[in-house]
Amino acid sequence: MPKGKRAARGTPLRELLRIPVGEPVDLASYDAAATPGGPADKKAGLTATAALAPRLAELQERLYAASTAGDRRRLLLVLQGMDTSGKGGTVKHVIGYFNPSGCRIHAFKAPTKEERAHPFLWRVTRALPLPGEIGIFDRSHYEDVLIARVRGLAPPVELENRYGEIARFEESLADDGVTIVKVFLHISYEKQRARLLERLDNPDKHWKFNEGDIEERALWPAYQEAYEIAMRRCATARTPWYLVPADRKWYRNWAISTLLLEALEELDPRYPPGDFDVAESRRRLLAT
Amino acid sequence: MPKGKRAARGTPLRELLRIPVGEPVDLASYDAAATPGGPADKKAGLTATAALAPRLAELQERLYAASTAGDRRRLLLVLQGMDTSGKGGTVKHVIGYFNPSGCRIHAFKAPTKEERAHPFLWRVTRALPLPGEIGIFDRSHYEDVLIARVRGLAPPVELENRYGEIARFEESLADDGVTIVKVFLHISYEKQRARLLERLDNPDKHWKFNEGDIEERALWPAYQEAYEIAMRRCATARTPWYLVPADRKWYRNWAISTLLLEALEELDPRYPPGDFDVAESRRRLLAT
Repeated sequence: MPKGKRAARGTPLRELLRIPVGEPVDLASYDAAATPGGPADKKAGLTATAALAPRLAELQERLYAASTAGDRRRLLLVLQGMDTSGKGGTVKHVIGYFNPSGCRIHAFKAPTKEERAHPFLWRVTRALPLPGEIGIFDRSHYEDVLIARVRGLAPPVELENRYGEIARFEESLADDGVTIVKVFLHISYEKQRARLLERLDNPDKHWKFNEGDIEERALWPAYQEAYEIAMRRCATARTPWYLVPADRKWYRNWAISTLLLEALEELDPRYPPGDFDVAESRRRLLAT
Repeated sequence: MPKGKRAARGTPLRELLRIPVGEPVDLASYDAAATPGGPADKKAGLTATAALAPRLAELQERLYAASTAGDRRRLLLVLQGMDTSGKGGTVKHVIGYFNPSGCRIHAFKAPTKEERAHPFLWRVTRALPLPGEIGIFDRSHYEDVLIARVRGLAPPVELENRYGEIARFEESLADDGVTIVKVFLHISYEKQRARLLERLDNPDKHWKFNEGDIEERALWPAYQEAYEIAMRRCATARTPWYLVPADRKWYRNWAISTLLLEALEELDPRYPPGDFDVAESRRRLLAT
């Protein structure tokens, strides 16, 4: 929700956070420290997030249970954002509410030699969730139009083609029962500096730091532009982007938990009926 | 720990639960409702288990961090046990304490056509945790000497060879830095009946039930014997089996959490030092 707009009470969070489809995107118009639709403060935010956990876990179990009876539906959370925007923290704090056996998490790194030898969507396809699962992409196919664009890792014509390929790929996933929740974790330039400094100032966090992070930071404007283009060109009514202000970690966790809850509630998966005679099975079991 | 034995205070749980290596195993001598070394009752057990969570999460982070600097060590929890013994419940309740992004969970089902076309350890090798990860096998290569033996799914000569192959495979994993925690979830024949009845009596659990469960139950003695043989023949000082009494879910969760904690504490992984000049990186970062 751009600065200055206010939402009516009771509006689903996804409506507040959805980036308008088919319009130019101006990231500078969004406040990274905002808390649209959220609890009043950090304390209330932590309490509210924890309170969502049982419902998230139950809906996940229903989704999985339904898949055992042929329901192909599944969820895919795509996390994108600048370094330190909280992709890893989201997996730890939000996905931790789910049963880990039903989550399929993939962190996309620089492509390997084998991955580079295939079309860019090849490795993405292999990491998709199965029916009943919740998939989580920590980075994704969007890197192929983000770092690839900023760093010139592919010829311009190929880069140009990728937007359409991504849009069609995501539409085909939606056709196959995948609810895609694409989240851009929006942090400010200043907050990134503060978080990188935290890593430098704590020896237990040095392993998370590398000098390349500072070089990437120098390309901030180019990345913001690459995100704006990708979000405009790769969004449809069924596959929109959500912008989650991420300077405040408690809001980020609450917002993503809530987006997932709204998606699961809309799916409304049901425990499937058994395909056996309960009375007969009961009789046989009691005879053992 | 067989019935009637008592442990000295302060004995590590793994010593209490380790099945003696190189001796015949008699499962009937272990009480499935026992709580060796454990808290006094369910309430205390739930509290004690929750209290382990922060330490488990921190050690997992250290293990992962160490791997980024070349440490190859990792943990592999192997869960075996009869139907309803709580393999899935363990993943949900114990593995839920960890950061899901560092866990590699694999539930082994009946082998696919492709898996059957390969040696039986092929699919197991592909599911192993990477350095720094915690792997969890819900069932494992032991099925190839359990159901395969009971149901006669392989020729006797091949079955016979598998014990040695498994023992050598696990030794080679240990050589490569894998700490294997093999857990047999020991439930009683009566408790299994009660848990299957629960599934029948709750429509929301019908999806977990199938009639084949009753047929498998009829083979209980053959399975117990197959377990006894496997545990005797596939255990070394470095790759022992642990017997966790599993009639009480709170004890099962406490015991497995504690076994994992003891294993991680022995590994004692450390955050690696950074390979960069902190003062210089700080200066460069503040200039942005």
